[in-house]
Amino acid sequence: MFPLILWFVLIACILSVVLALYLSQFVFKQDPGNEDMKRVAGYIEVGAKAFIKRQYITLYIVIAFISIIVLFLKYPILNITQMITYILGASASAFAGWLGMKVGVKANTRTAQASTKGLPAAFNVSFFGGSVMGLIVIGAALGGVTAIYMITESSNAVLGFSFGASTIALFMKCGGGIYTKTADVAADLVGKGEFDLPEDDSRNPAAVADNVGDNVGDIAGMGADLFDSYVASILAAITLGGGALLIAANGKMMESFPLIVSACGLLASLCGIVIVKKMVKDNPGKALNLGTYSASGLFILITFIFTYICSLDPMVTDVSLLYRNFLAGVCGLGAGVIIGITTDYYTNDEKKPTQTIAKSAESGHATVILSGFAYGLESVAIPTLGVVIAMAAAYYFGGYYGIASGSVGMLAIIGTIVSNDAYGPITDNARSIAEQGHLSEEAIRICDHLDSAGNTAKAITKGFAIGAATLTVLGLLFSYIEEVKDAGIISIALEINNPNVMIGALIGAIMPAIFSSVLVKSVQKNAELMIAEIHRQFKENPGILQGTVPADYAKCIDIATKGALQKLVIPIILSMIGPVLTGITFGVSAVAAYLVGTILTGFMLSLLMSNAGGAWDNAKKYIEDGHFGGKGTEAHKASITGDTVGDPFKDTAGPSINTLQAVQGLTASMFIPIFVQINSGLGLIKI
Amino acid sequence: MFPLILWFVLIACILSVVLALYLSQFVFKQDPGNEDMKRVAGYIEVGAKAFIKRQYITLYIVIAFISIIVLFLKYPILNITQMITYILGASASAFAGWLGMKVGVKANTRTAQASTKGLPAAFNVSFFGGSVMGLIVIGAALGGVTAIYMITESSNAVLGFSFGASTIALFMKCGGGIYTKTADVAADLVGKGEFDLPEDDSRNPAAVADNVGDNVGDIAGMGADLFDSYVASILAAITLGGGALLIAANGKMMESFPLIVSACGLLASLCGIVIVKKMVKDNPGKALNLGTYSASGLFILITFIFTYICSLDPMVTDVSLLYRNFLAGVCGLGAGVIIGITTDYYTNDEKKPTQTIAKSAESGHATVILSGFAYGLESVAIPTLGVVIAMAAAYYFGGYYGIASGSVGMLAIIGTIVSNDAYGPITDNARSIAEQGHLSEEAIRICDHLDSAGNTAKAITKGFAIGAATLTVLGLLFSYIEEVKDAGIISIALEINNPNVMIGALIGAIMPAIFSSVLVKSVQKNAELMIAEIHRQFKENPGILQGTVPADYAKCIDIATKGALQKLVIPIILSMIGPVLTGITFGVSAVAAYLVGTILTGFMLSLLMSNAGGAWDNAKKYIEDGHFGGKGTEAHKASITGDTVGDPFKDTAGPSINTLQAVQGLTASMFIPIFVQINSGLGLIKI
Repeated sequence: MFPLILWFVLIACILSVVLALYLSQFVFKQDPGNEDMKRVAGYIEVGAKAFIKRQYITLYIVIAFISIIVLFLKYPILNITQMITYILGASASAFAGWLGMKVGVKANTRTAQASTKGLPAAFNVSFFGGSVMGLIVIGAALGGVTAIYMITESSNAVLGFSFGASTIALFMKCGGGIYTKTADVAADLVGKGEFDLPEDDSRNPAAVADNVGDNVGDIAGMGADLFDSYVASILAAITLGGGALLIAANGKMMESFPLIVSACGLLASLCGIVIVKKMVKDNPGKALNLGTYSASGLFILITFIFTYICSLDPMVTDVSLLYRNFLAGVCGLGAGVIIGITTDYYTNDEKKPTQTIAKSAESGHATVILSGFAYGLESVAIPTLGVVIAMAAAYYFGGYYGIASGSVGMLAIIGTIVSNDAYGPITDNARSIAEQGHLSEEAIRICDHLDSAGNTAKAITKGFAIGAATLTVLGLLFSYIEEVKDAGIISIALEINNPNVMIGALIGAIMPAIFSSVLVKSVQKNAELMIAEIHRQFKENPGILQGTVPADYAKCIDIATKGALQKLVIPIILSMIGPVLTGITFGVSAVAAYLVGTILTGFMLSLLMSNAGGAWDNAKKYIEDGHFGGKGTEAHKASITGDTVGDPFKDTAGPSINTLQAVQGLTASMFIPIFVQINSGLGLIKI
Repeated sequence: MFPLILWFVLIACILSVVLALYLSQFVFKQDPGNEDMKRVAGYIEVGAKAFIKRQYITLYIVIAFISIIVLFLKYPILNITQMITYILGASASAFAGWLGMKVGVKANTRTAQASTKGLPAAFNVSFFGGSVMGLIVIGAALGGVTAIYMITESSNAVLGFSFGASTIALFMKCGGGIYTKTADVAADLVGKGEFDLPEDDSRNPAAVADNVGDNVGDIAGMGADLFDSYVASILAAITLGGGALLIAANGKMMESFPLIVSACGLLASLCGIVIVKKMVKDNPGKALNLGTYSASGLFILITFIFTYICSLDPMVTDVSLLYRNFLAGVCGLGAGVIIGITTDYYTNDEKKPTQTIAKSAESGHATVILSGFAYGLESVAIPTLGVVIAMAAAYYFGGYYGIASGSVGMLAIIGTIVSNDAYGPITDNARSIAEQGHLSEEAIRICDHLDSAGNTAKAITKGFAIGAATLTVLGLLFSYIEEVKDAGIISIALEINNPNVMIGALIGAIMPAIFSSVLVKSVQKNAELMIAEIHRQFKENPGILQGTVPADYAKCIDIATKGALQKLVIPIILSMIGPVLTGITFGVSAVAAYLVGTILTGFMLSLLMSNAGGAWDNAKKYIEDGHFGGKGTEAHKASITGDTVGDPFKDTAGPSINTLQAVQGLTASMFIPIFVQINSGLGLIKI
């Protein structure tokens, strides 16, 4: 029997969902602004809905297909529970993405309109709009997992839920990432590079597609990605918490503990949202970061209290186990903060790296690329040491289970993270709408200010997301090994000098590279198509450039939508088939090593790409602020090259690797029954 | 007692050295051309000697310092043998580098002069010039190892030799790589980018430094790098060949077998050189590749014969062991060929990737970078699968020892590889000298033809080098584990779910990234210094650009030399201190995992950087050949950006990672006595 305190977890989740619905009503009720603004916002809304609709239709088919595979995974036994939880997980994540985006596309024009009333009013609308995504993600994810666990008390059922969430994440993150950067790159290259149009100029046929992209990539995509990591981290801890020793010590308490810790994080995130709202005066960036840090502090306090409450449960015989895993969670959170701060250091234009990159733009396109790439490589070091220290400490406190507790701790304040993150694209869009709605200069300035605060907050949250994904996959690795042992294969041999292990590691290691390659190529090819379309429009309708004829936004939106969906196929097949083929050919040990290989190169590549991309972006902004000659100089042009290269790095390939890792970890666990059947887990080729 | 057949190995090595000296005399005797040519060649020679002199002075100090550390490694026992072999290894590699370069800087102008007599004559001079490096590397390396083994019969003594070679390689490869690309990037950016000077124009103050760089980077650096890999691969096989089971089966034969296999490779390389010379008519590129392939075929034949001879030795009781390891060697060679062909596919301008990259230059600087980077990432896949298949097959045939045999097989035809490789910079320089010596158009065309053949051959040899380095480090990893076991630590725990293993792997995984970051930054910063110097010269002496006043080449040479030596410090400290600190802190298991981490990310990064760089280079040449508008177009400018970014990728950071890996593998083995003393190998932090 599960601890009764789980009812409290469920209530907290319901509270979170209710609050999300309430805040979305608050956003809907705001004034959407003048006709121009409503028209532009309408375009964005229609574009986003069209993409989501087509995306979801494809998804239904894929989910149905995979459900059938899941059903027959343990043939001749029908795997009905996992199939149901798989569909539930997919649905919960899809619902969260849909709601978050629905609110996002309403909040943008309303933020712009509210900016005429001053910064605090505009901040409220955009921040609450973002918070809807944060609250619904945490509520639906934790609520779903808790309910399933309370009903089935089986980590296997939770695995199905997590796998479902992860299928959605793969589509939303890759598809959204390709979409958003196709439009961004095309809009920038033609608009800024060729015709000297300002950012978000309504004459640019790709302008609306660019705004749509912010919503589908940065709101829906990022939300689904963190939904996925969050559920997977809890799953890993539940699985390891069901180990015989832990059950013997504290009954079902250690299985439930990650749910309780996550609920504490939920409460801390709620408090964080209130604090941000209270603290914002004229510095929204500071308020957002203060929200993150105070949510972290409150999380520690609240979790400590609930750890004490748990320790009173009669089934707990080893109280220290609870406290040690509480400390492991704190270590995980600490690593998250370190990674966030490092990311900020490497991408903030008040710091040396970004300024140096901006300076190297003076020597031309090539040097700005080299300099950004070199800093991107360097930026891998401290986060890795952060993960190493957190992992060592978490293991010291709680063994393998402690490492899983660490990733739960790191992801506990996900409500705050997602809220801050979704705030970014809303303000970005708001700025664009304010410009196209011809609002006052003061209003545009306010929107600009809100937007740049979003960029700073984003750096920290992105670092968090990458670190969390890595610790989560580590947790998944250990839970995979645990499950293999449960499946009755004694011969799992994980020594690194086992050739199967080296083979698995090598294959796993190349996956992030191939995956990134496909995504970057997709963005680049789609962008070339869109550039051709923009050229066609300008040529056939010279009135567009003079502002007398409206551009045909729908064509660009269509190119982005179709391109993103077509180009999704290969990465999705790759990420699921990789662990399965490795397991069938080289056995269960090779799959474990495969995950290690993926973690090692994936962590490196995703940090490299995200941080180099972020730094290039801000180096460009630094020059646009008037440094090194400012706009229009050769240095500025070189910095635009950096930014354009960085776009698919930081918003498509880099963060998609997180999703790839989680999907692979979960696929490995899901397919254990198949691996076991093939020569008892030794695979087809035995060496 | 070692098998008597080792005397044959020693004789083959002496033959190789004698032939190298004979060919160098042949080169020296050729006509160095007219006064202009001699003057330019003189500049290059003086510049190269100045660099090597300063480099070697630094090296003497470092070698002396490390010798002392080596001497006290097993304190209170004085480690005299290893100290002596360490110094011998360093000296042998330094001598090979010195001779190869001495001949290289003589062969360039003589090739140019011979080109007036037709292609075969010019090819002979340049190819024999390159062959000196190939023959001296293989002779000195294999001869040194064989002699030491015959005298001491101890793999530990060979370890010292290998570590010495590896210290030199680190200096020569990183220093040479920084030097050559500093000059190349600066010369291109100012010459082509700003003033529209043709390649190698004598008005460019960086022109001579660029030529010097070809010699110190691509001849001396590459030679030292392959010397290092070659010795390390043999060392790993000797160490594993000394395992109790193998000794019980075949006595000392399996310890000696890698030396015999390598000698067969030496003979095959000699035949390869003869074949190239006979086959060259009007297609030098085809002749070079034919040389590589026929050396591979002959290696298999000759090794088979010698395996049979070895099987007759009375100490051999298990004949199949010999044949199985012969097959493992063939697998290794096969993987080398696969990697070479893949590298060629991704970087040859007759193939799709390079042409696509060239096409994307039409859309601008950013797209050419994205496209090249994406192909670079993709190019990792097939070589990895090649290594996986070779490793699996080699293990199937011969266990861990088989994997080491595989890397010996892959590196056996190193004589051919180094010869073809050193040929490249000689012809590159010859072209430049022919132009500056105002030779006939026909002569320049011949030099051009020879030069482009060198580029194609280089792609294949570079792929070989990377693959070989990876298999070698794998061999070193297994020999490290063997040595740790010999050192009497029973508690080495290599399971990937041991947190120390994950920690070691994570730390090892970031090393190639940090290392590359430092190297790329060094090139970029030094190039900026040199660009400033070129600007200064053009400004203060407008006559230079008009061709009336000679440029001050010495200043640029000085900047490249000083910069390269200064910037060496950090990467060298990093690569040696990484495994040592990891071992001291987290123990011997963590160091083994550290090597795995380094292999995984290092293999990926080095292939990515080398192949993307090679493809950018050839995409630029493809455009210069008249495609997509040809020279002077925007597409051409964008392709120059790609080439400039690619320069430090492909010739500094990418290949230096090979050296890094070998150095780390050897450092790990060297410091086992220290690790053992600290808490019996468990390290300071025990989790």
